[in-house]
Parts: sequence; C-alpha cells; structure tokens
Amino acid sequence: MTDDRFFRRSGPFSLAEIAIHVGGELCAEAPSAFLVHGIAPLDSAETGEISVFSDSKWSAHFAISRASVIVTNSRLGDCEHNGSWLLLVKDPSLAFAQIGHLFYPPPCDNTGIHPRADIADTASIGEGSQIGPGATIGPDARLGRRCHVEANGVIGEGVVIGDDCRIGAGTTISHALIGARVRIGANNSIGGEGFGFVAGPKGLMRVAQLGRVIIENDVRIGGNCAIDRGAVCDTVIGMGTVIDNLVQIAHNVHIGRHCVIAGQCGIAGSSSLGDHVMVGGQVGINDHVHIGARARIAAKSGVIHDVAEGAIIGGYPAMPIRQWHRQTVAALGKPAPRKRD
Amino acid sequence: MTDDRFFRRSGPFSLAEIAIHVGGELCAEAPSAFLVHGIAPLDSAETGEISVFSDSKWSAHFAISRASVIVTNSRLGDCEHNGSWLLLVKDPSLAFAQIGHLFYPPPCDNTGIHPRADIADTASIGEGSQIGPGATIGPDARLGRRCHVEANGVIGEGVVIGDDCRIGAGTTISHALIGARVRIGANNSIGGEGFGFVAGPKGLMRVAQLGRVIIENDVRIGGNCAIDRGAVCDTVIGMGTVIDNLVQIAHNVHIGRHCVIAGQCGIAGSSSLGDHVMVGGQVGINDHVHIGARARIAAKSGVIHDVAEGAIIGGYPAMPIRQWHRQTVAALGKPAPRKRD
Amino acid sequence: MTDDRFFRRSGPFSLAEIAIHVGGELCAEAPSAFLVHGIAPLDSAETGEISVFSDSKWSAHFAISRASVIVTNSRLGDCEHNGSWLLLVKDPSLAFAQIGHLFYPPPCDNTGIHPRADIADTASIGEGSQIGPGATIGPDARLGRRCHVEANGVIGEGVVIGDDCRIGAGTTISHALIGARVRIGANNSIGGEGFGFVAGPKGLMRVAQLGRVIIENDVRIGGNCAIDRGAVCDTVIGMGTVIDNLVQIAHNVHIGRHCVIAGQCGIAGSSSLGDHVMVGGQVGINDHVHIGARARIAAKSGVIHDVAEGAIIGGYPAMPIRQWHRQTVAALGKPAPRKRD
Repeated sequence: MTDDRFFRRSGPFSLAEIAIHVGGELCAEAPSAFLVHGIAPLDSAETGEISVFSDSKWSAHFAISRASVIVTNSRLGDCEHNGSWLLLVKDPSLAFAQIGHLFYPPPCDNTGIHPRADIADTASIGEGSQIGPGATIGPDARLGRRCHVEANGVIGEGVVIGDDCRIGAGTTISHALIGARVRIGANNSIGGEGFGFVAGPKGLMRVAQLGRVIIENDVRIGGNCAIDRGAVCDTVIGMGTVIDNLVQIAHNVHIGRHCVIAGQCGIAGSSSLGDHVMVGGQVGINDHVHIGARARIAAKSGVIHDVAEGAIIGGYPAMPIRQWHRQTVAALGKPAPRKRD
Repeated sequence: MTDDRFFRRSGPFSLAEIAIHVGGELCAEAPSAFLVHGIAPLDSAETGEISVFSDSKWSAHFAISRASVIVTNSRLGDCEHNGSWLLLVKDPSLAFAQIGHLFYPPPCDNTGIHPRADIADTASIGEGSQIGPGATIGPDARLGRRCHVEANGVIGEGVVIGDDCRIGAGTTISHALIGARVRIGANNSIGGEGFGFVAGPKGLMRVAQLGRVIIENDVRIGGNCAIDRGAVCDTVIGMGTVIDNLVQIAHNVHIGRHCVIAGQCGIAGSSSLGDHVMVGGQVGINDHVHIGARARIAAKSGVIHDVAEGAIIGGYPAMPIRQWHRQTVAALGKPAPRKRD
Repeated sequence: MTDDRFFRRSGPFSLAEIAIHVGGELCAEAPSAFLVHGIAPLDSAETGEISVFSDSKWSAHFAISRASVIVTNSRLGDCEHNGSWLLLVKDPSLAFAQIGHLFYPPPCDNTGIHPRADIADTASIGEGSQIGPGATIGPDARLGRRCHVEANGVIGEGVVIGDDCRIGAGTTISHALIGARVRIGANNSIGGEGFGFVAGPKGLMRVAQLGRVIIENDVRIGGNCAIDRGAVCDTVIGMGTVIDNLVQIAHNVHIGRHCVIAGQCGIAGSSSLGDHVMVGGQVGINDHVHIGARARIAAKSGVIHDVAEGAIIGGYPAMPIRQWHRQTVAALGKPAPRKRD
C-alpha cells in the first residue's frame, strides 16, 4: 500500500467500476460489488488490493500473490495462481496504468499565489493556477489555467505556458513557448544560451543566441536537464515526447513527436529527430545529424552520421544493432549468435 | 594554508595532541609541545604546518618539503627527507583525514529559521536546526535536530529527515524518508517522478509513480543528481553509500551499504547493487540488473547483465577486467601484457 | 526575425555602419545608406535583413535567399545568388557574430537589489549591479560593478566576484574567487565538497575539502554543471575557457586558458589541461592525468593516460585519432581509408 504521507488515495472502487474503467472482463467467480482499496505489486499485495501480471517472468509471484484481484491477459491468466480473481484485458500494463490514475488522480493543489512569490505587474496567470513560495514570474509572461509553478521556479520575461502545466521546484525557463499539459520536473535550465563561439582576435567570441525553445503539448521532462534556446532558429521538442533526467539538448535541436529520450543523453547542436524515435540512456548524438522516424538507438551509443527511418542501431560509432551485437559477443569471447537475416 | 574567508581553523594543537588523536608515534627528535597551526600539501607546507606522505610517487616532494611535521608510515618514512619531524601511523591517509577534521570541525552554523524561509504550520523542526533564506518546508514534514537546510532548499510534504543532516542550496526533496547524518549537496532533485510510460491509445501514457526514496544513515550525495522515487516499490540508498555529482538513479533502484558511485553514473530502473560496490565515473547500468556485493566497475563501462559478487569488470558490454585490458591494449597496438592467471 | 518578447533589437543600422563595424567591403552596387533592421538565417531572411554565408554546404540557400545583404568572403561570394548585396570579409562567421552583438547589445538590466533578495550586512555589491528576487549574498562576499545575480542565485560567505559578471538563476557558488566578465548559467553548483574519502574503521570517512574554486576572467559556464572546490589545493578554470552544460569538474582540477569543454564531460580529480585544449561531448578524463596544450579529444572518449601537446585523440582508451578512425571504420565493415602518414 502506498504511503499516505505522500499520496492521496481515491476510492474504494468496486470490481465492476474498475472493469468498466479499463474495458476488461472479470472472471466469472469475481463478485462485481467487491471493493478494492488500493494497488500494490504482486509480491506485497494484500486482501482488498489489485495487482498486475504482465510478463511471464513474474509467474512465481503470480503463483503465490495474495492480491484480491489481478489484471492480466487471457494467455497469462492460464498460469498457476493463488485464487486471486482475474480481470482480463488486452494490455495489462496499460490497464494497470489506468487503474493507477483512477486511485491516484492529480492532487488538488492549493490554488493561489503564495505571498512570497514574485509576479511581475504585466504577467498574466490563468485561473486555478498555483504559484509556490519563492517562484518568480517575469514581465509579460503568460501562464494558462490550472498551472502549478513549484517553489523557486523562475519563469522569464515573455515566456508563454499553456493550460495544465506543472513546472518543478527550482526550474528556470526563459525565451520559451510551452504548450498545454506539459510536465517539467525540478532544477531544469530551459532556454539558456547555446554553446556557440567563433574564434576572435582575443580568444573565443560568444555568438548571440537569438532563438527560442518551443515545447509542444503533452511533453514530459524529468529533472536537472539543460535545454538551450536556438542560435537563430528555435530548439523544438515535439508533442508527446518524454525526456528523462540529466539530458542535454543543445541549440537548434529539433525533436519530433512522441520520442523517448532516456537519462543522461546528449544531443548536440542542430541535430534533428523524427517522430517516435527512441534513444537509450547516455547516448550521444553528434551535431547536424538527422535521426529518421521510429529509429531506435541502444544505450551509450555514439551517433555520428544520419540514421535511416526505422533503423535500430548501437555502438560507437553507431552501426546496425545486429552487427554491433556480433562484435560485442565476439569481444566477450562467446560463440557468435546464428545469423538469421 | 587555507583561505580564512572560507574555512574556520581550530587549533593550534601540539604534536602530542595530534599524535594521540590519530594513535601515531612521533619520531624521537620531535618536541611534543611544538604547536602546529594548520595543514598543507607537501609542496607548499611551511614551518608550523603538518603534511602527509602517503605514496612513494610523491617522494620528490617529501625530500624537500618544508613542513614541520609529516604524517607517514614506517616504510615511507625511510625515504630521504628534509628534516621534517615524522609522525608514523599505520594508514597515513586516514590519519591525515582525521587531522583535517581536528583542525576544521563542522562550522557552528547560525541556528534558527530565516525570516524568509517558509515553514508549513504542520511541519516540525528539531532543535538546533538552521533553515536558510528562501527554503520551504512542506506540511507534515519532520526534520531532526541540528539539521541545516541551505538557501532555497525545498522539503516536500511529509518528508522525514533524521538528525544532523545537511541539505544543499536549491536541492528539492519529496516523497522521501532520510536517515541521520546524511549530507546532500546543491541542486539535487530527489523524489521526482520516475520515467515510466506505457503505450496508450493517444501516445505514451504516464504511469503513476507511487513509491518513495529511502536514504539511510550516513549517505553522502554530491550536487546536481537526480534520484527518482519508486514506481510501486521504493528507491533505496543504503547506509554509508557515497554518491558523486550529476548521477542519475532511476525508480526502484536499490543500492546497498557503503557503495561508492562516481560522477555522472546512471543506474536504470529496478537495478540493484549489493554492499560495498564501487562504480567508476560515467558508468551506465541497465535496468533490472543485479550487481553483486564488492563488485568493482571501471569508469565508462556499460553493464547489461548481472555481475557476480566481487567481480571486477570493465568495457561495454562489461567483461572481466583482464579480458577488457587485453582488448584495449590490443586496440592501442601495444604488446599484450603477460597473462598471469 | 527574432521574437520581440525575448530580445530587444537595436538599430536600424546603415550598410555603411555595419561594414565599418566588421571591417568589411561592400559590393559596388550596395547603397551604403540602406538601413538594415535585423539578422536572420539565409533561408528565412527577408528584405531589410542581413544574413551570413560561411560554408559552401549552404550554397543552395545562398542561391535563393531573400536577404537584402549577406556577409561572406570573396571566394564564397562567387557562388550563384539571388541578387542580395554582398558584404565581403575575411571571416564571415566572426563578422556575423560581431553584427549579432551590434543588433543585440547586452540588455540594460534593471539595476538594484530586489526587496526579496537577502544581502548580508557585511557583503559589498558594486554599483550598477542587479540582485534578483530570492537571491542570497553571504557575509563578507564582494561583488564587482555591473554584476547580475539572477533569481534565487546563492553566493556564499567570502566569495569574490569581479566586474560585469552574470550568475544564472538557481546557481550556488561557495568557496570561490571569480574574475571579471564571467558568465555562469542556471542551476550550477560551484564550490561544493569534492568526492574525497578514505577507508575508516566504520566505513568510508569523508576528507575535509579545504581548497577553493578559482575562475579567471572571461570564463563562460553553461547550466547544471558541478564544479567542486579543491581538497587542499584549488580547482582552477583558466581565462577565456568555455564550458557547456552538465559538466563535472572534480576537486583540484586545473584547466588552462581558452579551453573548450563540451556538454556532459567529466574531469576527475587532480587532472590538468593545458591552454587551448578542446574536449568533445561526454568525454571522461581520468584522475591525475595531464592533457597537453592544444590537444583535441573526440566526443565520448575516455582518457586514462597523459596526452601530449597538440595530440588529437579519440576512443576508449583514447588513442591517436587516425588509429581510432581505422578501428572504427573496420568495425563498421567498410574499407579502411588510405593511410596518408
């Protein structure tokens, strides 16, 4: 069960309500009026709780789980289990995520502006928003409705933020236009000067960085990331893209829609990613490189050339994943896998 | 000599006091009442200062050092030197660290709550604590005695922190239970949402992150790290573990006791480390991997499989360190080292 | 054209003024009194704007650009173009950077101390400085003239900062002496405790970190970096060096003058870089390593040994760049490039 100090649980919900919520089918013996009080992992769930069995590697836990009800699919549901009632769905992971949001709806934040927030006279803040202590909203900034800027967040002059956004504690945003339903974690630096220099007579000379950061709807950014504004063009993060912690996104980078960028990746200046690209942790992408749509890049790879649509690559320099796997298997001194292509 | 603007020196201490403090033996000619005023490196120490000689690679500095007294061991003490008195101990580095704390005890912070700190009515703060300007302590948070939350630190609702902890400027902590004597540097994001998504009908759907971060006693965390809370279980950092700067620790990671995690490492979701594991800088550890106790991982390695207890590994994919060294030596085009196993 | 919400444009300037500003030569047909209103990239520039053509790879854009005037050199100026007037200079990139600063001079910040800043009684702040809301200036800190500490910046006790510096939002600085014209981005942690431990009887024992961070004139640091103070010596960043985002610089590191350190690099304790060293993104440099002046290190390399002056290296372990290219080309399964040395 979750810790009540940190999470406000909703419910209880009857089995029938939950089944309708996820579009699933309860096993015949499940009493549809039974009340479920919370969610828990298979191995620690107790009576009154609901859990999920989404992968056969957890079958040992499934076999002895004390959860009252377990979300799974018809194939996995045939595995041996401990008398829990089954709720059959097509995609157990998706259904369990939906049940998570049912039990833990977004907290009703204390709307209003904290007396120790600093709001410029010319800033506008939509109704239902919450501005935390120490937060700063610059001149002419415009925030949508139901936004939450946490403690010590810094929203710079002219920044526009859509409805239902959350800006984490200590995050600073400047020179940026941000869509709706964007969630940004803590201590990010968004809109900073790009790393642009030319050789001048007295050493390096800074190039004025005159672009913006554009973050589209439904983007999610973790914590401690640095996203620089464009040099003359804009830096763009496409709709629905999710970015983990400690990621570096340089000036002029264009990231497509629904991409997944794992922790500690770095994308150098002016590179672009198509839609639905997946990038593993600690990957580095060179400057001025294009990654085609739906490409997938293994963790810790270094990408120095353009990548074709749908390609799956790994290594440094990045190569087709099978080629890389053969090399790494050879390096480990194990027999090479049989070639299937 | 240290810069008095930044460090408050205690002392002076007599040679006899220092020898007792570290359990060492002074050379016969050293006057036990001689007063030592400070510590310094071998090559810049002056009369009245104490230095350390812990490795024969510094023997040239030892030979000409002007330090009044030098901490070393009996073997190294036989090297040529410049008439400094010797203080012989078993472990010179440990003894010098102890002498450092003797001369530089923890500063007596100005206890009390700054008028511009923001403390929730329902928060409790132990006696002798210091809360800096702009710091925020959320509802129902509980801080122990003699804690210091530096400027603009953000302690979220319900967070528990033990005695004698230090939380650096700009660090934000939520959904966390923290032990005693924990030192956390600046601009960390602790307790943020893990990077958990499922494919939904309209793109990626966030999975509610309902676990906590548990940080045990005597943990030390540097600056600008991101440590996410668990998804349903907890993220755990074991007793006495030390973590450098810019480290990423994903949801559900369990780190054992007395581990050493160097800068810019990334540990992906649900992986676990046994006790006394040492991880070099910029290492990446895959998700759902287990690293056995006392394993050591070379810098910049990529760990994709479980690692046995006590194993020493390197490379990407990580392999036994000798095998990796043979490969890297071959890559450098030098003759392979003789096999000794 | 740049977004007026974020950038305050100066001008317009006549072609003659601009030509004098960069020491260039206008083509004969250009009317020297023509007024230029702003700068833009080749492919989006309009009438009244100036653009740059600095590399033949953009010749297709040059050929159809609608910019009124384009900065280029005499060789590139011979390429086909769309009737734009040409302004010929020796180094188009440098000239365009100079024109950028002409149109976008440093903003006239609102000087003065925000009522919600926290300035210690014993701190001194030079005239013309701006201290943002929530910023904290500690006891005995000394700031030069025309400095800007942005919102929630934290300047610790005794820190000295020269004239014309800018400290980004949420950046914390302690135990540091900083020169003039230093620009530091947001959410950096500068002067934190180095990662120094010795094995003690009850686990790891922290070594007191008693040095400082010295940042010389004209240094530029991005966002979310961690720069630790020295252990007994100092950590030093030499004059004119530029550092990107998310960089880790450990205790006792000495970086020379005019170095370029790209994003996500990590430099371990006590290593040193000569002048004019260039380090690519995500590079790791071992502790106690010396990198000779003018050396260049390819992105993602791991440097474990000393590097000679002027060497160009890559890979992990880093090797001469040609040797590394041969290996990577071989790994990719393409024919090796002809040996030219």
